[in-house]
Amino acid sequence: MKTAELARDSPGYWRKKIRAGRWRRPTSGLAPGYAQANLVIVPRDHASDFLLFCQRNPKPCPLLEVTDPGDPTPRAVAGDADLRTDLPAYRVYVDGSMVEERTDLREVWRADFVAFLLGCSFTFEAALLRANVPVRHIECDSNVPIFITTQHCRPAGPFVGPLVVSMRPIPAPMVSRAVEICARYPLAHGVPVHIGDPAPLGITDLGRPDYGDAVPIHSGEVPVFWACGVTPQAVARRARLPLMITHAPGHMFLTDMTDEDLALH
Amino acid sequence: MKTAELARDSPGYWRKKIRAGRWRRPTSGLAPGYAQANLVIVPRDHASDFLLFCQRNPKPCPLLEVTDPGDPTPRAVAGDADLRTDLPAYRVYVDGSMVEERTDLREVWRADFVAFLLGCSFTFEAALLRANVPVRHIECDSNVPIFITTQHCRPAGPFVGPLVVSMRPIPAPMVSRAVEICARYPLAHGVPVHIGDPAPLGITDLGRPDYGDAVPIHSGEVPVFWACGVTPQAVARRARLPLMITHAPGHMFLTDMTDEDLALH
Repeated sequence: MKTAELARDSPGYWRKKIRAGRWRRPTSGLAPGYAQANLVIVPRDHASDFLLFCQRNPKPCPLLEVTDPGDPTPRAVAGDADLRTDLPAYRVYVDGSMVEERTDLREVWRADFVAFLLGCSFTFEAALLRANVPVRHIECDSNVPIFITTQHCRPAGPFVGPLVVSMRPIPAPMVSRAVEICARYPLAHGVPVHIGDPAPLGITDLGRPDYGDAVPIHSGEVPVFWACGVTPQAVARRARLPLMITHAPGHMFLTDMTDEDLALH
Repeated sequence: MKTAELARDSPGYWRKKIRAGRWRRPTSGLAPGYAQANLVIVPRDHASDFLLFCQRNPKPCPLLEVTDPGDPTPRAVAGDADLRTDLPAYRVYVDGSMVEERTDLREVWRADFVAFLLGCSFTFEAALLRANVPVRHIECDSNVPIFITTQHCRPAGPFVGPLVVSMRPIPAPMVSRAVEICARYPLAHGVPVHIGDPAPLGITDLGRPDYGDAVPIHSGEVPVFWACGVTPQAVARRARLPLMITHAPGHMFLTDMTDEDLALH
């Protein structure tokens, strides 16, 4: 690791701190300007179907990295990282049910584990804020409201399930700007999947999200829906894999890729 | 198939004609406005590594569709098509060597075949021409010049090899415009991988391409290099798979997706 990468605000600094057990909290706001990622680990037997699921559903499942079986290093996005130790908290699922939360995977790591890193909404939210587009749940210091829709993902093997979306209310004159900004980040869920009346998504009450917190929608604002990184985790749980490991909500992996590295080029 | 889709210039019209054995020539220029695709078929045993290779090398390998094992229908891009019959010519490779060219795969199709459809340069070339950016090999009515570079693709399992690029000379004032246009089509190789002096790619003589034909580079023009769809086929041949089937050069699959469907949205 180069010295510059150990600066206070670098991802390397935070990964080292997390690895040493000196940071166990959510990662939002750490190493600003660098992309954070969702983590899903599945055994090799299910990795090819999960990879196919991600290929078929790129908006909820934007792949940043897929590791070789047994290799805990995400070589493309953080060549000196260790996915077994560098996230503050993990969740272990057996047959689709969460059985424990851990801070370290070294004792449970297996030679057949394949790790998937998926782009995260932090990237486009930061871009929206830089353009003065409001992000309501950040204003409210709450969790983004998340809804399970009646739209189906394209299935792959055992991975079958609905599209899950997050909702952010955007002032009507700024909706086009929000789309333009998010279009640059297909690896962070990209443009919204739906803008306006939530009925076609099968959502009947925006005040009652399936996960996260409800947020106020002001007069003149439009509900805007993005494909959500909860989708692949939800689909993997429904598939009741014998074993799956994910990051704990909000406790993401910090990559060495800047948000700009993730932008279209 | 809907009546409108059987119009003279529709992909469905041409697929039906090809299926009936009434078109055995290259597909360039057929069904203008619709995206054509490269085809690679590998047995299931190698499909997950090949899928991973494409995920790790999205510029040379932009995935439009991956079929389920044994299913000859590319459901996302042409729901009534049959990949066994709807291309004018196929090539069969055994242990990395071409053993025959066929016009029909029905006799050799297997329940473990997985088909990969990859975006094709026709899509961005049509967009360049619409914007009055010249495409030299089309002007010359020759094949695009293709070079094997000294840059390595990210490997996956047995799939290892160099990046292969195509070259188009672009007038210097139009190079930015060409990049802007191609940026809309990440599923058709996207923006150029290299612009200008070919030495860093390990290319010493632009007049001697590894495949295709040399084209003149006029004064004031810059050589511009795009990741080429030959890359995955070349890598798959090097891997000496027991069996692999591809389209014959220039004899592509016609999808029902318009070039605009493939553009960023």
